[in-house]
Amino acid sequence: MTTTAEGAAGQVTVLGLGDMGSAIARTFVDRGYRTTVWNRTASKAAPLVDAGATAAATAAEAVAASPLVVICLLDSTAVDEVLSTVEGAVAGKVLVNVTSGSPAQARANEQWASERGAEYVDGKIMGDPPYVGTPNIMFPFSGSRQAFAAHESALQELGTIAYHGEDAGAAAVEFMAQVAASYELLIGFLHTLRLVQAEGVDVVEFADRFAGSLAAFPPLLASMSKAIKSGEYAPDLGPLNVQAALMDDMISHRDSLGVEAVRMREVKELMDRRIADGHGDQGFSSLFELLKRR
Amino acid sequence: MTTTAEGAAGQVTVLGLGDMGSAIARTFVDRGYRTTVWNRTASKAAPLVDAGATAAATAAEAVAASPLVVICLLDSTAVDEVLSTVEGAVAGKVLVNVTSGSPAQARANEQWASERGAEYVDGKIMGDPPYVGTPNIMFPFSGSRQAFAAHESALQELGTIAYHGEDAGAAAVEFMAQVAASYELLIGFLHTLRLVQAEGVDVVEFADRFAGSLAAFPPLLASMSKAIKSGEYAPDLGPLNVQAALMDDMISHRDSLGVEAVRMREVKELMDRRIADGHGDQGFSSLFELLKRR
Ligand SMILES: NC(=O)c1ccc[n+]([C@@H]2O[C@H](COP(=O)([O-])OP(=O)(O)OC[C@H]3O[C@@H](n4cnc5c(N)ncnc54)[C@H](OP(=O)(O)O)[C@@H]3O)[C@@H](O)[C@H]2O)c1
Ligand SMILES: NC(=O)c1ccc[n+]([C@@H]2O[C@H](COP(=O)([O-])OP(=O)(O)OC[C@H]3O[C@@H](n4cnc5c(N)ncnc54)[C@H](OP(=O)(O)O)[C@@H]3O)[C@@H](O)[C@H]2O)c1
Repeated sequence: MTTTAEGAAGQVTVLGLGDMGSAIARTFVDRGYRTTVWNRTASKAAPLVDAGATAAATAAEAVAASPLVVICLLDSTAVDEVLSTVEGAVAGKVLVNVTSGSPAQARANEQWASERGAEYVDGKIMGDPPYVGTPNIMFPFSGSRQAFAAHESALQELGTIAYHGEDAGAAAVEFMAQVAASYELLIGFLHTLRLVQAEGVDVVEFADRFAGSLAAFPPLLASMSKAIKSGEYAPDLGPLNVQAALMDDMISHRDSLGVEAVRMREVKELMDRRIADGHGDQGFSSLFELLKRR
Repeated sequence: MTTTAEGAAGQVTVLGLGDMGSAIARTFVDRGYRTTVWNRTASKAAPLVDAGATAAATAAEAVAASPLVVICLLDSTAVDEVLSTVEGAVAGKVLVNVTSGSPAQARANEQWASERGAEYVDGKIMGDPPYVGTPNIMFPFSGSRQAFAAHESALQELGTIAYHGEDAGAAAVEFMAQVAASYELLIGFLHTLRLVQAEGVDVVEFADRFAGSLAAFPPLLASMSKAIKSGEYAPDLGPLNVQAALMDDMISHRDSLGVEAVRMREVKELMDRRIADGHGDQGFSSLFELLKRR
């Protein structure tokens, strides 16, 4: 716990004291911010008040108390409900909303705020409450550049932060894309462990070997994304003519074990179409051209 | 190019001088092995003979020339054809077949070899011909432990090698599983770049950020595989009750952009079924239980 001289670090309000909102408020208190808190169920403020926060009786009073207002509620519906009760108090404030939601919801919130004279920054949270206040939790932010810059040092107290541009939806896009890419890797990994287990191989030992091979991916992902951006496709992972032959073996092996082959069939079908289009000399990244057209 | 005094490194035969077989034979010649080569189309032996190899007139003569015979042909059909011509010459030899193929084909080859008094080692190749002779190409091997041990130093000339046990099919299993897990990651990455591009975000910058986040996966893959092995599922990535709520947002966001959501829908459906079964407090790895039952 790092404590700064009272008041030196600034003033902040936190709306919403669930698991995540409480961790955020607690971090601000611990770092010496004059912290005002509000929660629909008032009792959840008690531990924070004990630690040094001030509880406001209403959300509007809480908003009035600080220039920076961090909003951390269950979902967008809760945000809409709470914002409707603070309409008269937001002019001149910076609203930083880290509630989960879509890019479209973030853009709608920004519109709402700007119509009422407030600045809006959207944030998303990649990590769990115990990691708030450490570098091991990531917060992508986007929206008002000026508001972000003005409160960057306060937001840095929460974890590893990054600014993704003026489009308020950009933080949500980053979150959705990072989470999706991670789930793709992880569900594919579970299906692979199914194959490994069906063949009688130790899943923990295989996981260790696959984890070791992940180190080879960063340069590959970089070169693939550059190929996609430029449209110039080198034969990454070998020419599709060669790769496609392997897919049939993989699919029939999986079929023989009763292991699903959804992605393997898709990859094979995409490779066959690229080859039929005369691009059998290009590599895996060129499959992107077919995804674009869908 | 490392050259050893002639003969000191041993004797080896290579059957098949395509791109890969030629790279293998060339590596043995360069490292000082007395190398005998054979290829169906004899002209492909010429550059190797120039480098110091001996060309045999038939595959059977080539097999007779060395205790260790490395086979690198197009596919299993080619292996079957060539083996049928060397039946009388294989007794007492070690056959190391690195041709692509399934676990079942590897097991059938081992059976064929042992019926004729030969020892069999199966290998698979993860990498491209220019990397042969460097650590940046991986060869999983399996089959006769004794034969592998006797020729380990020769096989080590080819790249990074690993022995996966006496089941001749194990090297092919490792290859299929590693390749599948990689393709899962990569096709998921391409679909994610589609989302990123549809939202107007730079694909190269996103790829760089995702590549950076890969460093967090090795410990996660280790703990997930341990959970799967033990059947004790901690709430990895958060409890399914919480994760499932996010999936709906992700799916509707993708639908709104026209980006496919095959794996996201599957993950959501698996999470819903686990929750309905009373396991909403467990984590992502517990989805494996449903894959097992399919
Ligand atoms: N916890 C995590 O691991 C985690 C990780 C990443 C992101 N997040 C995100 O962080 C946000 C907060 O999560 P959390 O874990 O703190 O959730 P939580 O523990 O379930 O807390 C939900 C909060 O929202 C409030 N709320 C719900 N509906 C409301 C309404 N209609 N009006 C006013 N307040 C309302 C609740 O107030 P009451 O106390 O009155 O019910 C409570 O303060 C969510 O968007 C979540 O997706 C959480
Ligand atoms: N090249 C790569 O990047 C790479 C990477 C990993 C694994 N591999 C695997 O390594 C193996 C060899 O690949 P490669 O790149 O060397 O292939 P390649 O250049 O196409 O050469 C194929 C070889 O197989 C021979 N062959 C084909 N059918 C035959 C038959 N019926 N009887 C006798 N010989 C026959 C060819 O002889 P002819 O010269 O007479 O046609 C040639 O020597 C394949 O299983 C491949 O999957 C290759």
